[in-house]
Amino acid sequence: MKQMDKEHYLIHRLSSKYIGDDAAVVGEKIYSMDAFFEDTHFKRAWMSMAQIGRKAMLVNLSDAVAMNAEPDYALVTVSLPQDVTTEQIDELTRSLEETASEYGCEIIGGDTVAGDKLHLSITLISHSDDPLLRKGLEEGDLLAYTGTLGESKRDLDRLLNGEKIAEDSRFFEPMLQREFVQKARPFLSAGMDISDGLYCDTNKLLDMNEYGFAILNSISDDIGFSGEEYEMLVGFKKVHLERLKSIAEACGTTLTVFAEVAKNSRRFPCKSHHFKD
Amino acid sequence: MKQMDKEHYLIHRLSSKYIGDDAAVVGEKIYSMDAFFEDTHFKRAWMSMAQIGRKAMLVNLSDAVAMNAEPDYALVTVSLPQDVTTEQIDELTRSLEETASEYGCEIIGGDTVAGDKLHLSITLISHSDDPLLRKGLEEGDLLAYTGTLGESKRDLDRLLNGEKIAEDSRFFEPMLQREFVQKARPFLSAGMDISDGLYCDTNKLLDMNEYGFAILNSISDDIGFSGEEYEMLVGFKKVHLERLKSIAEACGTTLTVFAEVAKNSRRFPCKSHHFKD
Repeated sequence: MKQMDKEHYLIHRLSSKYIGDDAAVVGEKIYSMDAFFEDTHFKRAWMSMAQIGRKAMLVNLSDAVAMNAEPDYALVTVSLPQDVTTEQIDELTRSLEETASEYGCEIIGGDTVAGDKLHLSITLISHSDDPLLRKGLEEGDLLAYTGTLGESKRDLDRLLNGEKIAEDSRFFEPMLQREFVQKARPFLSAGMDISDGLYCDTNKLLDMNEYGFAILNSISDDIGFSGEEYEMLVGFKKVHLERLKSIAEACGTTLTVFAEVAKNSRRFPCKSHHFKD
Repeated sequence: MKQMDKEHYLIHRLSSKYIGDDAAVVGEKIYSMDAFFEDTHFKRAWMSMAQIGRKAMLVNLSDAVAMNAEPDYALVTVSLPQDVTTEQIDELTRSLEETASEYGCEIIGGDTVAGDKLHLSITLISHSDDPLLRKGLEEGDLLAYTGTLGESKRDLDRLLNGEKIAEDSRFFEPMLQREFVQKARPFLSAGMDISDGLYCDTNKLLDMNEYGFAILNSISDDIGFSGEEYEMLVGFKKVHLERLKSIAEACGTTLTVFAEVAKNSRRFPCKSHHFKD
């Protein structure tokens, strides 16, 4: 079994009915946990401690945002290598706290451990009275994504080639579509954030709903395989298209329709987006 | 700054008022997170996957038990090395789920990530209508611990020497004092589980309460420095001593008084208990 398959295998071995979405919905509480590990998700040479703390928190906040939830509390576990200085610890913790705070979230605990690498695991405790789930697609629903895709993979490839990328690159600074999700929620059938790439994540959404698709606008592989975008992938009834396009525009983003949900078993090609797999 | 000091430094940089106990108490909800990392807390050569999963979950459950809380839900993040087989993943997840289940707790989510080492981070969501906190000691309170201490360090030293230890060693299988904590709660001023050793953990309890101590029964270093015991360290008014001893006996354990809380700044010697620091 390939490494990425093993990771999925582990999660699927767990029997809980709560597993399958970006987060577990238990009543109005929403619990999510995401790892941000050195040499899997980032290299320390690429990013400042402030950037590492910020992205680690943003990719976690994205789980809550994608489900139309408000993040309330965070727990953070950090594995600290010997060579990290107290100044770097200050920079990391400040960045984690400030980023959480922008979304109304407070770090209330966690754990620290000595380790060879700088690994972060973050748990978020959120709430929502109307969570957006992955399940809920119906035949004929349109599939669309927000914003532009492709920059994250392009810049990751540049970093892997030893090149520099812009300080404000999507790879460092995901743009979460919080306002769009909040306003669009009543008109959406299903949705999730794009973390593994549009191709893989569309497959996941279709798996969950046991549908396939018909392509409406072809996607280039530069877009389809770009992971860690943290834009939204959404499904909705055709009748809501114009309204959702207006909401996107009002939120300073765009909505690109690419497929229609159909009764078939069609899937996109999917391969891992992380550099270590 | 030494590595262990850096780990504490990071946690103390976080400003939340919820930080300081084994877990964060928010209303009746109790949130805790603990790492169980390869080559910091265990070596894979020492333990089966079932033992790793079980201990990882038990040290987390101990946070809830120590606060007189009922664990409801768990999130588990696992970093999976390439050489872990699917059979080992089965063994690990089964052990995590079964151990959680013994305490009425369900794994509802988490994350998996490729990595060089087998690292586990677990978050527990618990509840309590009468949590046992670290704060609450008063002058004259007695300090005592449950059960016997010393086996965990003795067996860790044996493992580090390349020797074998018993399958049922405390190092593999911490004994959580759940029943004792539940029954004793009304008569306790403060308490915590013993994870860093009786010396270090007594210091933490005294720091939190801004007291010192007078020794009543001397402790050997074999006991004082033995970490990862997960027995309970408790403080209580003298008037409750006999009753608490009876409760301990009824729960099949013992209660050993070793000090009295006093207005001084006395502390025990404290050094890290993990083998990698």
